[in-house]
Amino acid sequence: MAQYTPPLRDMQFVMHELLNVVDALKQMPAHAEVDADTINAVLEEGGKFAAEVIFPLNQTGDEEGCKLDKTTHEVTAPKGFKEAYQKYVEGGWPALSTDPEYGGQGLPITVNQCFYEMLNSANQAWTMYPGLSHGAYEALHAHGTPEQKATYLPKLTAGQWTGTMCLTEPHCGTDLGLLRTKAEPQGDGTYKITGQKIFISAGEHDLAENIIHLVLARLPDAPQGSKGISLFVVPKFVVNKDGSLGERNKIYCGGLEHKMGIHGNATAQMVLDGAVGTLVGEPHKGLQAMFVMMNAARLGVGMQSLGLTEVAYQNAVAYAKDRIQMRSLSGAKATDKPADPIIVHPDVRKMLLTARAYAEGGRALAIWTAFQIDRELSSTDEAERKEAADLVALVTPIVKAFLTDNGWIATSHCMQVFGGHGYIKEWGMEQYVRDARINMIYEGTNTIQSLDLLGRKVLADNGAKLKKFGKIVQAFVEEEGVNENMQEFINPLADLGDKVTKLTTEIGMKAFQNPDEVGGAAVDYLRVCGHLVFAYFWARMAKVALAKVDSGDPFYKAKLITARFYFAKLLPETASLIRTARAGVKPLMEMDEALF
Amino acid sequence: MAQYTPPLRDMQFVMHELLNVVDALKQMPAHAEVDADTINAVLEEGGKFAAEVIFPLNQTGDEEGCKLDKTTHEVTAPKGFKEAYQKYVEGGWPALSTDPEYGGQGLPITVNQCFYEMLNSANQAWTMYPGLSHGAYEALHAHGTPEQKATYLPKLTAGQWTGTMCLTEPHCGTDLGLLRTKAEPQGDGTYKITGQKIFISAGEHDLAENIIHLVLARLPDAPQGSKGISLFVVPKFVVNKDGSLGERNKIYCGGLEHKMGIHGNATAQMVLDGAVGTLVGEPHKGLQAMFVMMNAARLGVGMQSLGLTEVAYQNAVAYAKDRIQMRSLSGAKATDKPADPIIVHPDVRKMLLTARAYAEGGRALAIWTAFQIDRELSSTDEAERKEAADLVALVTPIVKAFLTDNGWIATSHCMQVFGGHGYIKEWGMEQYVRDARINMIYEGTNTIQSLDLLGRKVLADNGAKLKKFGKIVQAFVEEEGVNENMQEFINPLADLGDKVTKLTTEIGMKAFQNPDEVGGAAVDYLRVCGHLVFAYFWARMAKVALAKVDSGDPFYKAKLITARFYFAKLLPETASLIRTARAGVKPLMEMDEALF
Repeated sequence: MAQYTPPLRDMQFVMHELLNVVDALKQMPAHAEVDADTINAVLEEGGKFAAEVIFPLNQTGDEEGCKLDKTTHEVTAPKGFKEAYQKYVEGGWPALSTDPEYGGQGLPITVNQCFYEMLNSANQAWTMYPGLSHGAYEALHAHGTPEQKATYLPKLTAGQWTGTMCLTEPHCGTDLGLLRTKAEPQGDGTYKITGQKIFISAGEHDLAENIIHLVLARLPDAPQGSKGISLFVVPKFVVNKDGSLGERNKIYCGGLEHKMGIHGNATAQMVLDGAVGTLVGEPHKGLQAMFVMMNAARLGVGMQSLGLTEVAYQNAVAYAKDRIQMRSLSGAKATDKPADPIIVHPDVRKMLLTARAYAEGGRALAIWTAFQIDRELSSTDEAERKEAADLVALVTPIVKAFLTDNGWIATSHCMQVFGGHGYIKEWGMEQYVRDARINMIYEGTNTIQSLDLLGRKVLADNGAKLKKFGKIVQAFVEEEGVNENMQEFINPLADLGDKVTKLTTEIGMKAFQNPDEVGGAAVDYLRVCGHLVFAYFWARMAKVALAKVDSGDPFYKAKLITARFYFAKLLPETASLIRTARAGVKPLMEMDEALF
Repeated sequence: MAQYTPPLRDMQFVMHELLNVVDALKQMPAHAEVDADTINAVLEEGGKFAAEVIFPLNQTGDEEGCKLDKTTHEVTAPKGFKEAYQKYVEGGWPALSTDPEYGGQGLPITVNQCFYEMLNSANQAWTMYPGLSHGAYEALHAHGTPEQKATYLPKLTAGQWTGTMCLTEPHCGTDLGLLRTKAEPQGDGTYKITGQKIFISAGEHDLAENIIHLVLARLPDAPQGSKGISLFVVPKFVVNKDGSLGERNKIYCGGLEHKMGIHGNATAQMVLDGAVGTLVGEPHKGLQAMFVMMNAARLGVGMQSLGLTEVAYQNAVAYAKDRIQMRSLSGAKATDKPADPIIVHPDVRKMLLTARAYAEGGRALAIWTAFQIDRELSSTDEAERKEAADLVALVTPIVKAFLTDNGWIATSHCMQVFGGHGYIKEWGMEQYVRDARINMIYEGTNTIQSLDLLGRKVLADNGAKLKKFGKIVQAFVEEEGVNENMQEFINPLADLGDKVTKLTTEIGMKAFQNPDEVGGAAVDYLRVCGHLVFAYFWARMAKVALAKVDSGDPFYKAKLITARFYFAKLLPETASLIRTARAGVKPLMEMDEALF
């Protein structure tokens, strides 16, 4: 029943008209030969794969879920998932943006990011199987030994094997310093690892011939807490010297979680019973190595909710145009029908436009962020690489938390457009809401993201990273300040920029007295920053659209109207957020624990 | 795993300390003998029933769902539901607030409302089986012939039979004017009714021996649209003259919906194939008669979300006290443990306090509203009855929409407190979110509620009903304006009252030019009014608490702190809502339908 059309035009708009990524990529030796046609052609094919191969498996995967054989500890993914994965591998999709040294196609991260938005629109649960591999790839690529790289990276790049991140244990998720899994050195360079991990996405399945687990554990001499954690690579099947698969390693799935959503992905309890692994990076420095995966994963989670926002929007629009119910308050519109299509009703439009503005704003931010990663990785200029890295560090928690909170709001709105039909499984809308909910939790809850933003990224470096983004905003404000047509966008953007500066200083000063003030303001603060970033991109998109709106292409008219909607109806949320952030932590801490 | 303790103390606080309901009830002949001890004893027993009998069936009911036998068209509710219903009947609970003339106990509606909050906390899906009977009872009590009343009311009162509301059809939910089900007069006072109804809650089940459907249909001579709809009573089993059950009527369940939540309740597609029924009320005036049911049902839906908010809060608090993770930013609190309980973290407290403030604020509003219904039904003073009726009409859409939107926010927050454990079924938290979602949709979507409030209840009578509530607020503001300790509550309350007056006038004037302005502002407007009502009750609760906070009873301290939290962290949402309401409908209507 559900439908999905890859938003290629909007992706092209962001890449080629808003950010002109190709001009910048041409300056990078790694991407000098990438042109717009190549990017567009790849994404068109990628969109076809998403819409035609994995989208049809989304509802069936949700209904069927994954099955664990408790004797063999093997998990079977829903019907069709394995075959779709095979097509994904045959299409060379896992290699899209990976290192040519290991068989990758070396295309910009920006392209892969767009591809993943489409995969997630089509089927978040399926996409998590290949999606987790990227994190394992990144960690091994950054911290692996030459031997580890040679062993694992070509297979991960080819998609022959997939990867996981084994962090969480029953008693610790956010607080990895508490983890108990142990690694005993065997004297031959290997370790025997014992412990229990939970909530391991794609932890066990039948899609690939081997699964490469990246596991956090403690060495015998490890200091307590988060400074005593090391990272290990633990394959499901031990890999022989010649690259062939050896014996089954002692890491197995002990159970599958029954979840609210993402039923098609196996969320595994993993038991390690003396499983053999090798150390990745330095002893006791596993958390740093793991953060390479985590940061990639956090951006990936933002893509999940962006994808769900887009597909929920498309379906809600189709329904709102088709479903007739009541007459417009300003007089009948479809006089040939017994009622008007519900898209005539202002609040239906408000729900649709909210989803649309969040999708398009999120897409601009996501592509810009991916493009900063390309700059960070491939620029020949060190200062540029550093600046890009700082910007990525700053916006990563915003991409993760703001896009997933928005995804929750948007999918719920789109479901509401369907009325009672949204609540039943048939139409597929309630699945988007259920799937979207996990994105606010995993890879660091959105509260953790907000603490990362306000505490680590902003206050801990005295606002230096924030100022970098602030300068970009400021430059745009000054450039467009004389453009009368841009006033409706520039004024609120400039105003919000000033308010963020002021709010940051205020919180910083209060936090100096009481560190809990950071925790009391962080969630509101992140949302305010999210709006600042969105306001910047919406103003820039409006500028492009204004210049082309008379071309006759309705795309620009729609973009301009959506920008106006964003400034009129969504940005004002900051008025409340700034007040509640400013109200401080006292109203939260007054209640004794016993009184709750 | 989940737990539930009936919030008896808080209910007693609202009834006896905040509203002094017993003093007022004593002036009503129907309730002159009701005292506080009786109310408290009944609710204590009711709470036991909810917590001990139906709460244990909540998660199992969700997992098992309802089963339809396609041959017999009979539905089996989840295991234990029937036995629990039997206990409910044996306990006399269906009769709590019904008319003694038909075997009811005639207790105030206020008591029944509190009882239903607890039932909904314990098990929303189960509670809908007896809950729907109340609507059928009300419609027949208000509009039935003496014969219909004699036939149906004693059985509904005893709980021997249950009731339904059969309104929605596949092509019409909100817009009942489109409905097609037909009723053919048989010349003997009965009608043969043919058509298809969908989304019929408790439409078919094995809990009671008969099901009394109240069905909207068109007579052969009916005018088109909503003025041609009549109401019929259609029993599952035809009732013989002597009250015994006759033949199976031709109304049967053709299918069950697969839903996001409330799995334990049978949401039935009902096929009427010449089913025999009798007319309720006048021909073509079925919608008016149906509104008697709808209004009761709308308040009932508010109770569903209030119940879910309370139970989600209780479980999240227990988890937040037990789960240890990370240290407080202001220094370790539980130094004997490897980490602090997460209730030390400000944002965890914010999520908990949000749920708590919404639960307690919602309870005050709900009990006050129920008490206005008692005044409307049982006061000896006509002016008082009229005033109470106007207040109930005004706040009904607020109770429905504001409490269910708040319930969605609160259950999602409480689930978030659990981190990844909130997303898995084991802990029961994700079920509260799924169950809460339907409450924003059925019995009139929350958008419809907002149009009812702004269009019908406020603008259509020139703000007369709103002014009645405004006078109550104004009197309290004037009374407490001189009380220094109350300034922190009175000032924002008075301020918001002024803003609502101004906003109402503004929208009214804009709507005069363009009726779509109502639809553009209504949802924001309802939420602003919801906060006005909550601010009023929170200020009044703060007053009571302030007077008793030195008594040593920590209840009052907690109440005062929660009031302060509400004013500091939740009420400021109005700053944004007023801005977006004021931004008007233009940003919503500019986009051509084709551009979406």
